[in-house]
Amino acid sequence: MKAEIITIGDEILLGQTVDTNSAWIAQNLVERQIYVEQITSITDTSTHIAAALTAAAERSDLIICTGGLGPTNDDITKQTAAHYFQTPLILNEEVMGHVQSIFDRYEKPMPEINRGQAMVLKNAEVLFNEWGTAPGMWVEHQGKIYVFLPGVPFEMKNLMTHWVLPRVADWRAVERVAIRYLVVAGIGESYLAEMIADIEQSMPEHIRLAYLPQFGLIKLRLNAAGSAADSLEREVEEWASRLSARIGSAVVATEDVPFQQVIVNAFTKEGCSLSTAESCTGGRLAAEITEIPGASAMFLGSIVAYDNDVKQKFLNVGANTLAKYGAVSGETVEEMAMGAKKVLGTTYAIATSGVAGPTGGTAAKPVGTVWIAVAGEKQVIKRKFQFKDDRVVNIQRTVANALLLLWELFRQERAL
Amino acid sequence: MKAEIITIGDEILLGQTVDTNSAWIAQNLVERQIYVEQITSITDTSTHIAAALTAAAERSDLIICTGGLGPTNDDITKQTAAHYFQTPLILNEEVMGHVQSIFDRYEKPMPEINRGQAMVLKNAEVLFNEWGTAPGMWVEHQGKIYVFLPGVPFEMKNLMTHWVLPRVADWRAVERVAIRYLVVAGIGESYLAEMIADIEQSMPEHIRLAYLPQFGLIKLRLNAAGSAADSLEREVEEWASRLSARIGSAVVATEDVPFQQVIVNAFTKEGCSLSTAESCTGGRLAAEITEIPGASAMFLGSIVAYDNDVKQKFLNVGANTLAKYGAVSGETVEEMAMGAKKVLGTTYAIATSGVAGPTGGTAAKPVGTVWIAVAGEKQVIKRKFQFKDDRVVNIQRTVANALLLLWELFRQERAL
Repeated sequence: MKAEIITIGDEILLGQTVDTNSAWIAQNLVERQIYVEQITSITDTSTHIAAALTAAAERSDLIICTGGLGPTNDDITKQTAAHYFQTPLILNEEVMGHVQSIFDRYEKPMPEINRGQAMVLKNAEVLFNEWGTAPGMWVEHQGKIYVFLPGVPFEMKNLMTHWVLPRVADWRAVERVAIRYLVVAGIGESYLAEMIADIEQSMPEHIRLAYLPQFGLIKLRLNAAGSAADSLEREVEEWASRLSARIGSAVVATEDVPFQQVIVNAFTKEGCSLSTAESCTGGRLAAEITEIPGASAMFLGSIVAYDNDVKQKFLNVGANTLAKYGAVSGETVEEMAMGAKKVLGTTYAIATSGVAGPTGGTAAKPVGTVWIAVAGEKQVIKRKFQFKDDRVVNIQRTVANALLLLWELFRQERAL
Repeated sequence: MKAEIITIGDEILLGQTVDTNSAWIAQNLVERQIYVEQITSITDTSTHIAAALTAAAERSDLIICTGGLGPTNDDITKQTAAHYFQTPLILNEEVMGHVQSIFDRYEKPMPEINRGQAMVLKNAEVLFNEWGTAPGMWVEHQGKIYVFLPGVPFEMKNLMTHWVLPRVADWRAVERVAIRYLVVAGIGESYLAEMIADIEQSMPEHIRLAYLPQFGLIKLRLNAAGSAADSLEREVEEWASRLSARIGSAVVATEDVPFQQVIVNAFTKEGCSLSTAESCTGGRLAAEITEIPGASAMFLGSIVAYDNDVKQKFLNVGANTLAKYGAVSGETVEEMAMGAKKVLGTTYAIATSGVAGPTGGTAAKPVGTVWIAVAGEKQVIKRKFQFKDDRVVNIQRTVANALLLLWELFRQERAL
């Protein structure tokens, strides 16, 4: 069973809206062994919508369309679909009552334009949308299934969850797929490829390995496709184990989770705690850790010491240190890390200081110069980095490397 | 001139990666009057890549492909393109030297696999990528232009900015366009639409108004298209002024800048300073402000007080206050804001505390309950919000509302 997603709306093609719907839909279909062959984003133009429907039906069995179901004149998905299926639009009384009730609830008169929301394709089964005014529609036509959903993310998600996904759950008939992830930290992509080249080469055709690099991390995805679910699970597990044994301790997770999650879990399990002292990262390190549910079990707080006075007053960085070595120096980040560990009372602390840019660089410390220190239970490690001139990227790279450095010391000290 | 974007990579079709590249590319092309006809996301499969290239070339003149240029075996865009154009891949010495130099810089031997990065399409002009190892390529073939870029966002953005966009800037030969932005803070979209309905209705056909809503903000984009650049500029300026006069002080910027930029500029100009005391936002408020170049002129620091002890020790929040009202309360955020203002020595301070979720909610304070306070020169204001159950969205909404609340008090106190 192959699927396609068609997202309809000028705002996507104008770059005003990032299409997050497609990733959500794909992820939920993949979990049910339905693979997305193509995602197509097109404008609100009837010829283009019809062409996309035709092309998708040539490749795939399930076509999910989102967007273009609103009441205003620019939304034409329904009219286009009616023409495409050669079926009329008819008034659905239940939907009409629902739309009316929404306006009644706010005690507002319903603008006439909203009557159009209750018009549905005659050949469709209506997917009742209690979260908004535009109903979803399910059409079976010449052996293919077409689903039309509103583009508003939470309406789309609710209609998918309550109507569409339960129906498609049983379709994973012929092709089964088993997937495993290995999250690898601290090894460059090409080194990793070299390290596992012979294993990769000996994999059978139906097992695919993908490298998904992120800042400082690589996710390896193993994908086994075939007809027998049980043996695929066994097989993919075996290959994951072989890779994992080869890569060793650089494998930080065997599921698809962010690195911060790995750190939060490991710290919580080991009963360790963390704080940060941030200059150039300006709070982003703390923000990325606290975005993980349950971070409060191990993360106590952060001093964002943007100003040098704050570094002295809150982190006990010596005035001499700042005067002699400057804020961007190994000496300063070391004192910042030790200061944070002490004043916030944690077992580990990370400190960052750097010239994020675009200005503020000098000959000795050009834009992109960053120092990171990590204070642990027994020692402090520090490292200098030279990044480039993009402020946001420099901050992201600093965060990624700070987490790697923390992990390095934590693993060493806790002998993991 | 019509364009298409093709994003290549299994991770997109599996829903693991949200395609943010396409929106960025589309936005930058639209600013140069090049409209995107279709965005197509496909797997790393050579037949599918070739079919997508063929289909795009039938519709459009400029085809921008991202992804699939890495050194590992799963990346096959280059080989597929070579076959599609019937051209060989040849070694580019300059790229080879650059790739080698990256490894030299870190004093590591270069894995053999990276030699593949220096192989380029013979019929291509190489777009030198100093931000990574995969070069971009520009191919002119049978009257169409094909651009191949790596999928890593900052490499793609740099190659677009330095190589591709400067070249396409001159293509808007016939049609000229003038654009103005108004950033509007603190007014809902439908209220804003009502407020300016008569102005919008009286606009001539060739001037278009778009609403681009974000968390707490709406960007209005005015777009005037025609043949005479000078008069278009005058016209769009006049309409922007009319809208601006009607909307009044809710217009916080007349160019396309993030709200934090508006705040950094205004604080710097007025000689005011800012600090934050963050519980549920965990440093994200500080991080978003310090992402703006020049933020150090007005932002001194933040106490991320995730733990209650940190709230007491660093922000002077009373133990009684915490015991009586809890960490998520108007009383606590008020003390946090006053504490941050005092200990960090700033003229303004923002404090946040809430139940970000997914756990930690109670009947009285369900997940999504958030308190925000802003301490200014003369007073403290605080407000309660009830968001929903998505942790990351709750943090983003808190940040957006905290900035709005800060702006409200700042404008009032400074009589702006």
